[in-house]
Amino acid sequence: MNKFMKMAVDEAYNTMRENAGGPFGAVIVRNGEVIAVGRNEVITTNDPTAHAEVVAIRKATKLLGTFDLSDCEIYSSCEPCPMCFSAIHWAKMKNLYFGATRYDAAEIGFDDQYIYDVLEGKASKEQVVVKNIDHEDSLGPFKEWSTKHDKVKY
Amino acid sequence: MNKFMKMAVDEAYNTMRENAGGPFGAVIVRNGEVIAVGRNEVITTNDPTAHAEVVAIRKATKLLGTFDLSDCEIYSSCEPCPMCFSAIHWAKMKNLYFGATRYDAAEIGFDDQYIYDVLEGKASKEQVVVKNIDHEDSLGPFKEWSTKHDKVKY
Repeated sequence: MNKFMKMAVDEAYNTMRENAGGPFGAVIVRNGEVIAVGRNEVITTNDPTAHAEVVAIRKATKLLGTFDLSDCEIYSSCEPCPMCFSAIHWAKMKNLYFGATRYDAAEIGFDDQYIYDVLEGKASKEQVVVKNIDHEDSLGPFKEWSTKHDKVKY
Repeated sequence: MNKFMKMAVDEAYNTMRENAGGPFGAVIVRNGEVIAVGRNEVITTNDPTAHAEVVAIRKATKLLGTFDLSDCEIYSSCEPCPMCFSAIHWAKMKNLYFGATRYDAAEIGFDDQYIYDVLEGKASKEQVVVKNIDHEDSLGPFKEWSTKHDKVKY
């Protein structure tokens, strides 16, 4: 077994056995060195975004002092949900390894399918009712951004 | 203009003008009362997950002491990216209002299309190389979770 994946899976065991969160772990590695280990902390922190991958990304970016993890790779004990996949992309990581699949996760009650369906525009039932309002009035910041000279790109 | 959307747009102006992050703001409301205001903090915190909606969710859940925001709604100055939409769903919110669209955002350089393409399985180029490894060896935590008697569901 890949040693970093084994670390991620071990962390999944730990967080579950300590009742800290669901059975998920993630490890961020740079040049063969572990930078951060994340575990699901939804229950302990009351933060619904505290999935293992997001927790690992927050730790790694804090430690390295940059939001750019393009020289890192991530090992996740399970296929990341759309939130976590997006976070990995925003962190600019180029390699993602996962162990269990989204279908394995769905079988034990962690089902991401609704999110996939919404993002693909084919959800049959709206769990989140989404409405576009005040469109024209909301464009002001974007217009200002487009001509802003001292903007920091990220 | 909806008063909560105006607050979200005002926050988008503020974070941009202070060079704290991109021109994005979000407001979480419960029973007509503002619970949390979030702004894009990617640059100030080096956290690539610190989009306005995620920041607002973290603030609201911390304040209310629960990961369940099902009695809240969120106003975002711009259509949430897939990370933020997923976070809103995980926080169990049932109503999302947004102002500018993902297409408006793409025009000023904030383009989520790659993420949508990956999640729909139709990305033509792999920016994030995704590999499934050690599948069988990664299923242990899920097997243990399925028979765990004292698990906390969330």
